[in-house]
Amino acid sequence: MAPTIDQLNTASLSDALRALEGIYEHSPWIARQALAQRPLRSLAHLKSVMAGVVRNAEPEEQLRLIRAHPELAGKAMVAQTLTAESTHEQSAAGLTHCTPQEFERIQQLNTAYNARFGFPFILAVRGPRGTGLTRQQIIDTFARRLHNHPDFERAEALRNIHRIAELRLNDRFGAEPVLGNEVWDWHEALARHSDPGYAEKGQLAVTYLTEAHRACARSIRERMIECGFDEAHIDAVGNVVGRYHAATPGMRTLLTGSHYDTVRNAGMFDGRLGIFVPLACVRELHRAGKRLSYNIEVVAFAEEEGQRFKATFLGSSALVGQFDPAWLDQQDAQGTTLRAAMAQAGLRTEDIPGLKRNPAHYLGFVEVHIEQGPVLSELDLPLGVVTSINGSVRYLGEMVGMASHAGTTPMDRRRDAAVGVAELALYLEERAVIDGDSVATVGMLNVPGGSINVVPGRCHFSLDLRAPNDAQRDALALDVLASLQRIAERRGLRCTVEEAMRASAAPSAYDWQHRWERAVNALGLPLHRMPSGAGHDAMKLHEIMPQAMLFVRGENAGISHNPLESTTNNDIQLAIEAFSHLLRQLA
Amino acid sequence: MAPTIDQLNTASLSDALRALEGIYEHSPWIARQALAQRPLRSLAHLKSVMAGVVRNAEPEEQLRLIRAHPELAGKAMVAQTLTAESTHEQSAAGLTHCTPQEFERIQQLNTAYNARFGFPFILAVRGPRGTGLTRQQIIDTFARRLHNHPDFERAEALRNIHRIAELRLNDRFGAEPVLGNEVWDWHEALARHSDPGYAEKGQLAVTYLTEAHRACARSIRERMIECGFDEAHIDAVGNVVGRYHAATPGMRTLLTGSHYDTVRNAGMFDGRLGIFVPLACVRELHRAGKRLSYNIEVVAFAEEEGQRFKATFLGSSALVGQFDPAWLDQQDAQGTTLRAAMAQAGLRTEDIPGLKRNPAHYLGFVEVHIEQGPVLSELDLPLGVVTSINGSVRYLGEMVGMASHAGTTPMDRRRDAAVGVAELALYLEERAVIDGDSVATVGMLNVPGGSINVVPGRCHFSLDLRAPNDAQRDALALDVLASLQRIAERRGLRCTVEEAMRASAAPSAYDWQHRWERAVNALGLPLHRMPSGAGHDAMKLHEIMPQAMLFVRGENAGISHNPLESTTNNDIQLAIEAFSHLLRQLA
Repeated sequence: MAPTIDQLNTASLSDALRALEGIYEHSPWIARQALAQRPLRSLAHLKSVMAGVVRNAEPEEQLRLIRAHPELAGKAMVAQTLTAESTHEQSAAGLTHCTPQEFERIQQLNTAYNARFGFPFILAVRGPRGTGLTRQQIIDTFARRLHNHPDFERAEALRNIHRIAELRLNDRFGAEPVLGNEVWDWHEALARHSDPGYAEKGQLAVTYLTEAHRACARSIRERMIECGFDEAHIDAVGNVVGRYHAATPGMRTLLTGSHYDTVRNAGMFDGRLGIFVPLACVRELHRAGKRLSYNIEVVAFAEEEGQRFKATFLGSSALVGQFDPAWLDQQDAQGTTLRAAMAQAGLRTEDIPGLKRNPAHYLGFVEVHIEQGPVLSELDLPLGVVTSINGSVRYLGEMVGMASHAGTTPMDRRRDAAVGVAELALYLEERAVIDGDSVATVGMLNVPGGSINVVPGRCHFSLDLRAPNDAQRDALALDVLASLQRIAERRGLRCTVEEAMRASAAPSAYDWQHRWERAVNALGLPLHRMPSGAGHDAMKLHEIMPQAMLFVRGENAGISHNPLESTTNNDIQLAIEAFSHLLRQLA
Repeated sequence: MAPTIDQLNTASLSDALRALEGIYEHSPWIARQALAQRPLRSLAHLKSVMAGVVRNAEPEEQLRLIRAHPELAGKAMVAQTLTAESTHEQSAAGLTHCTPQEFERIQQLNTAYNARFGFPFILAVRGPRGTGLTRQQIIDTFARRLHNHPDFERAEALRNIHRIAELRLNDRFGAEPVLGNEVWDWHEALARHSDPGYAEKGQLAVTYLTEAHRACARSIRERMIECGFDEAHIDAVGNVVGRYHAATPGMRTLLTGSHYDTVRNAGMFDGRLGIFVPLACVRELHRAGKRLSYNIEVVAFAEEEGQRFKATFLGSSALVGQFDPAWLDQQDAQGTTLRAAMAQAGLRTEDIPGLKRNPAHYLGFVEVHIEQGPVLSELDLPLGVVTSINGSVRYLGEMVGMASHAGTTPMDRRRDAAVGVAELALYLEERAVIDGDSVATVGMLNVPGGSINVVPGRCHFSLDLRAPNDAQRDALALDVLASLQRIAERRGLRCTVEEAMRASAAPSAYDWQHRWERAVNALGLPLHRMPSGAGHDAMKLHEIMPQAMLFVRGENAGISHNPLESTTNNDIQLAIEAFSHLLRQLA
């Protein structure tokens, strides 16, 4: 019989220690320090406290914890080195049934990894869904992580240890994240639709109004109907709109959702998590026969990423009355106009103006989204509350100096365009840090036709500047451009800069942000407030109604727009519980 | 009747001022200050003193001098605005016969130029040969200079004013640089031979053993015979070797020369100046029926640039017994081996070892070369004496961090590979300046596949480090690599660096450097000692005999490996006079 958190809170220390034995491999000190923080509010709280104990431990203790784990084993080694628990896990992953080639490869990787990092490779082989990675996935991850920076890989090893502990705690406490599992599987099912050229390579790409995109829309609509939505339809721009009615007619509506299009070679959670999490919540309401005092409207936005056409946020723009008819003449890479693509998909452009929502009918907009950044992962936190979607401005620049012979041009007679940009890049870094929560990036940097023995006469670069509010962004941009001017002047360079994009910040509405905060707190999780560095559909809805977002931790340092994008069944479960809590707060 | 410098020295100030009237447009203060420095040692000295007066003038005075010049005129403006002297010059350049299109273009350029710089465009329209640029050359130069940095363009305007003054002084003093003109023309004649693909575009490219290359060899050999060399032949690697015998047999030999191959889309003076200057000197000896107490051997080296095959300094390597037989298996871009190319050219590889010179038979090696850098041009000096050919070391590097979202990755959680390289580039600059005469360059810099919104995970770069001696170069390299290590460590980056090239420094032999110094001094020119940042054939000869080089000023900020590479008839004349002086010192 599995214990409960209440039982753990009231048990003697020795009983409680026994209950947590083996959760962290050969490291009872973690359980002991965690239990000192009783009473624990939830299993999620226990996990968070245990991870916190490791975070706060000395680096040597962390290393000992890592080294307490057995090497990832092929079949020949299992008997000698694995604990019962880890044997079970590695066996579940099929590692006890390696081919000789796989076995040999794993041994090679073990040797190289140990030589590089000085500790064994640790991987939560049951993976983000909890059901086990394939042998190929394990080997690929191993090979990939071999190239990580040692500091990062150490942190990654600890994160995998926390995930192993989480899965063991789930088993120990009989706490299967049932909804999280199911929603994870919905993502996997939807990811089967992919554009030609990507589908064949097993890659995900769902760009606006392709066959795969339209199949996704149909699939989401069916899922809505299954979940018990009262209405579900595909609108004039391809958004899938589901409505779950309030207990009584004439009530206002909570709007939520996110986008179902993807970048090319994408991860499967970006956008879609913000569709499926509310769907799961509505299904639970429907199953329980519950109606709320307000309508729930979930919109799966058809287009956010700007991949096929230049227009971005096309889906949410339509809802705020900003669909620009000029977009209809944009062409994709094949020369198909947006107008033709819409006609072929049976979308009636004349109905687009009617998609505009009347804010008076709405309570507000909330959006759940995978973080797409490393912050929650590094803090060992499953959820974060967004304070603002950062405002941003982007520039493309060219620094022009004078190309000259690297051997014959004395240092004091150079007009080196690249060193000018280098100085700017370092200024960006310094300046952004002063704000604390601004970010500034030189993402593109190139000396065109550069030669080893030529002082660069030209250097192309980009600037991406973001801050939680427009005033802060503008002050940052002003300082950066002034610095650019100063650098160019002092170095005898000439610089041209062209603004490529500008987006206003969208600070969260206080009430709505606070609702997310209460929900996170109710789960027993530490509260972390953070800006959103990326743009989201909520930015658009912000223009006509209050909004606030909830972020869900991403695996693999929060990588996104990449097949490595991932999140766990447990984190999804927590997002669903947080969303349900927010729904109850509004009831 | 033209005055002489002696007459100028002894004339009254007012007579002397009259003699120099109009040399610098509407600026008698220049002549007045220059004459205060009488006695003048030569016309070259007078030019140098006048340029020095301008150099030392206040910036406002310099600006007034520039503004005293008329705009470059199309035909419609001639009558109103030009002085007699400048009308004559612009007329010589054919500017009084513009087409309406050319006239309009010049007016457009005048407007744009004035708007950008605040002064009129000044160009010595009689050009580096003194016979006048074409209208197209003038318009191209105008359009190109419009993009210069204002500081640089101001200096370039002054340099053109000095060149205008030089040509006026030549006319006034009846001092035509006859030998300089002729040798200039020899360069132009040799530049008619160019490789297929370049010849058609009017570009110069003479790579090892092509048809054009072999035509050059034949042409140089014929020129040697015309100049009165006693022997002239093409050796087993394609070097053209001419010998002018001493008055008596059994004497030692002065070795000199430079290379006749070129880079692709080259200038016409690189290498060849060091062949033709001694040829002109030998011709003068031969014409005067003079023999010296030593033999003169001029070698036109067949290969220095490493363009067609990877081997570089192939010609001079053969003379020092370092022709590597493994080179014979190198292939060009078409897959032709060096061996096959030599066979096709009728070169007998079995004779290569015999090309090795016995140092006991030689006095030493001297080489005249165009500077290929901006130093002499910026100092308004026609000649410079080389103290050492710098030692160098080159590296190719890759910095690896972690690519991440530019919006979602806080500044303190980044592993930005590009900023790491930026920091290194700035360190290079700081560190090289400490030595004074070291140079350090990041010539290649590229974030592969960089995106405006992605923190760079990778950055490729090159390092080129040079110093006048090997110890200084090694200390520089050590510091740079240590800094790279520190930067990578602090920023959590990983860096790989591969050494791509290493060459030892070749300090000039004291006696030989001193002979060049005496020669320069004898011309009445200020002495400027400088290291050579580029490699030269003298580096190879250095290994078996004493050597020293003389540098000749390059126009257009000393640009080289570029069709804009140029030097003037007057500077070539001075180089010939300096070489003749050196020959007399040895006699």
